Amino acid sequence: MKITGTFVQPLCGGDIPVMNWREEEWDKEFFLMKTIGIDTVILLRQALGKWLAYKSDTLIRVEKAYEPSYDYMEMFLNLCRKHEMTFFVPTYTPVHDWLSASYVPEKEFEFLKPLVDEIWERYGGHKAFGGWYMAQEISRKEAFRVIELLQRIGPYCKQISGGLPVLMSPGMQGPKGLISTLYPPACRKKMAVTFDEHREEWDWMLGELKGCVDIIAFQDGHVEFDDLETFQKINVELCRKHGMECWSNIESFDRDIQNPKFPPIGWEKLRFKLLSAERAGHDKFITYEFTPFLSPNGCYPSAQYLYKRYCEHIGMDNRKN
Amino acid sequence: MKITGTFVQPLCGGDIPVMNWREEEWDKEFFLMKTIGIDTVILLRQALGKWLAYKSDTLIRVEKAYEPSYDYMEMFLNLCRKHEMTFFVPTYTPVHDWLSASYVPEKEFEFLKPLVDEIWERYGGHKAFGGWYMAQEISRKEAFRVIELLQRIGPYCKQISGGLPVLMSPGMQGPKGLISTLYPPACRKKMAVTFDEHREEWDWMLGELKGCVDIIAFQDGHVEFDDLETFQKINVELCRKHGMECWSNIESFDRDIQNPKFPPIGWEKLRFKLLSAERAGHDKFITYEFTPFLSPNGCYPSAQYLYKRYCEHIGMDNRKN
Amino acid sequence: MKITGTFVQPLCGGDIPVMNWREEEWDKEFFLMKTIGIDTVILLRQALGKWLAYKSDTLIRVEKAYEPSYDYMEMFLNLCRKHEMTFFVPTYTPVHDWLSASYVPEKEFEFLKPLVDEIWERYGGHKAFGGWYMAQEISRKEAFRVIELLQRIGPYCKQISGGLPVLMSPGMQGPKGLISTLYPPACRKKMAVTFDEHREEWDWMLGELKGCVDIIAFQDGHVEFDDLETFQKINVELCRKHGMECWSNIESFDRDIQNPKFPPIGWEKLRFKLLSAERAGHDKFITYEFTPFLSPNGCYPSAQYLYKRYCEHIGMDNRKN
Repeated sequence: MKITGTFVQPLCGGDIPVMNWREEEWDKEFFLMKTIGIDTVILLRQALGKWLAYKSDTLIRVEKAYEPSYDYMEMFLNLCRKHEMTFFVPTYTPVHDWLSASYVPEKEFEFLKPLVDEIWERYGGHKAFGGWYMAQEISRKEAFRVIELLQRIGPYCKQISGGLPVLMSPGMQGPKGLISTLYPPACRKKMAVTFDEHREEWDWMLGELKGCVDIIAFQDGHVEFDDLETFQKINVELCRKHGMECWSNIESFDRDIQNPKFPPIGWEKLRFKLLSAERAGHDKFITYEFTPFLSPNGCYPSAQYLYKRYCEHIGMDNRKN
Repeated sequence: MKITGTFVQPLCGGDIPVMNWREEEWDKEFFLMKTIGIDTVILLRQALGKWLAYKSDTLIRVEKAYEPSYDYMEMFLNLCRKHEMTFFVPTYTPVHDWLSASYVPEKEFEFLKPLVDEIWERYGGHKAFGGWYMAQEISRKEAFRVIELLQRIGPYCKQISGGLPVLMSPGMQGPKGLISTLYPPACRKKMAVTFDEHREEWDWMLGELKGCVDIIAFQDGHVEFDDLETFQKINVELCRKHGMECWSNIESFDRDIQNPKFPPIGWEKLRFKLLSAERAGHDKFITYEFTPFLSPNGCYPSAQYLYKRYCEHIGMDNRKN
Repeated sequence: MKITGTFVQPLCGGDIPVMNWREEEWDKEFFLMKTIGIDTVILLRQALGKWLAYKSDTLIRVEKAYEPSYDYMEMFLNLCRKHEMTFFVPTYTPVHDWLSASYVPEKEFEFLKPLVDEIWERYGGHKAFGGWYMAQEISRKEAFRVIELLQRIGPYCKQISGGLPVLMSPGMQGPKGLISTLYPPACRKKMAVTFDEHREEWDWMLGELKGCVDIIAFQDGHVEFDDLETFQKINVELCRKHGMECWSNIESFDRDIQNPKFPPIGWEKLRFKLLSAERAGHDKFITYEFTPFLSPNGCYPSAQYLYKRYCEHIGMDNRKN
């Protein structure tokens, strides 16, 4: 099974370097992506702090965001049409403490609704506009207020767009998701979710999200390699039960390396996860993210060899590209 | 307005990777720099620990510094002449606690004076020798002893060199300058300088430095983007009041990213700072630093795209170079 | 004196990026290595966690290691034969607390013995199989239980292989080896080994290892540059006394830079260490590691210039390669 989808992120920040690409470079990249079988592109976020992926009058007004000099939303939609790919558009995700009482799903929905309207009004006519990506990355049941938000925003996105599918890509709370000064190594293992907790919590959450979210693509990087397949089988089983598609978000960066974080992943690890995800019965593979971790055009020189190994794995002679 | 000056740093250390370049590579780089409008080159430091940018007999004797195998001072001065650029030569900055009582400006001046003599004697005849760079990076009034040092060393540099201009590039104590284990996130905002404090302190400091320093080029990366223009307008206003030139040191690396620190900055951020600095009325833009952050020849593959975006911004077709 | 040996490490992990190379890329690299005088290649480890450099049935059974898709041991041995180099094969080093009472050398030996057997049985017929590398990186006498292990495993390796030489590459416990949250900067200097302690402890250790280990290649990166030559002279003197060869492991990455760790070293530092090691009278120089730190083919763009400087230093015109 091939990776047929990837996230893209043109904004600077977080722990992923920015490429500073525009249409000329992304066009070349989309051509390559299409060549190796990618048909689905998901924009990671529409805003990072005050930096915007498109000129959102709403965010400029409400969040005092900075007016961007470029419209990445338009560009990605055009490139997806040109290269015959489907584009998923993200919802806005302001930084909130989802566990705090001050986070009120009804208010959050009222805040996000005009942004959905703005996007659909401006970009809804694009042929490549193929779905919505709920950018909230939750991993445990304790974030139940986000579930309540998704129960509102998911159906609204579907309704306004004539039923386009809704995707989310949650984490699994493995020990690698708890690396921070808040969690000393000793307590990570203890805090990591067990198989049973994961199954029970996501059974409830997916039940709640039935009809609101169509596709679940769990990130595969937070749990131990030893535990991955078991978790993945639980995920597939739960998605089947609740009538959802189950994709795997096969991360192409290495979560085991924290300084510098994060380099392109070792090929054996990527191969391990590809085979594990296939055995577990996923419907589709996406990756976070082709550029810069798996692409020979990205900012990590070693990524060209990860790309070569991947091409050999899927039986494609990468030298013919 | 274009960036017309840049720092260079050929010594290994700190958080900036070393290129290990010599004349062949720097010549190529200076040619490119000249092509996009750079006419001013500032050497960041003459020594980093015991590693020297030129064979300073004084530092080898006094600091037991290591004898270098190469004379970067000579090389940069020659390349500046060849490419018709002006070169600023740094003063030595031993590591001291400027707030400690043991830091005595008079003694520090006596220590630095022979180094100024040594440099002028050896390199003063170079046509490209165009000014002095005071390498002490202060940001608050509490470092007043450095002011007292500059009151001695600045005039001495000018006097010995027939009045060459003296440049300094201080910080503004924004929250991004306080990222260290000493300052937990919660207290950074509180410790960050306010507009009024900054104005009041630098009004006093620039008053003290009148006649000692000719050009002030504040680093633009430590304050929040929201606050930048206000700070910059204060800086320009104060420089005008005290009869100094006001340059902006437009940092081309991203201070928002701490691991790995520091990658080339996102283009939208650089553009934001270029436009802000222009509106504030600066006399000249320099950057820290063309290589490796803004140059297609540097060690960050993504820098070539930052360079492309910058070339488009200044209306230069970078493909013709 | 040239660097004539290098470590290689094809497994992902730790703080060194993985290249994801296979035979095509390593063949090209070995050709270049041979061109600049490298005749000795040492595999750093046979396993990193559960990721293996060759399909070890023993480790797959005992450690539940993952079955690798590639045999790097076979590949390196073949490339060494092709390029007329000698290959050192590492022993397995499970992660243990060597200072804990639960670490029992006899038991460890019984655990490692079948792996030595497995390797010799499978790869012993290779012409390039030229020695054994004891992968335990000790630095102080307190790890005496490792000495007891080496007293068993070293002779066993020699005996099974008809007397092939045994190499180890210990650290010197300088302050740069103590950079971790466990050791705040203030206490590093205090905890660093003194010349006398180092001499006394290694005199005892090398005495214990006589006949068990043939070559000692101290890592040169943990001590201060000022102290390096004195330490190296002690090392050479002790090796002479105990009838061992003394190599220097001249690290080609920069230990002074911690974020991001570790970039290719500055040329002046590498030159300093090359000259110091030569004056101290070492028998041979190896490096950790040619790829990616010193190679123009690696993942650090700046490494090509370190390579250029090194080629100039050894009097080789690197443009002719």
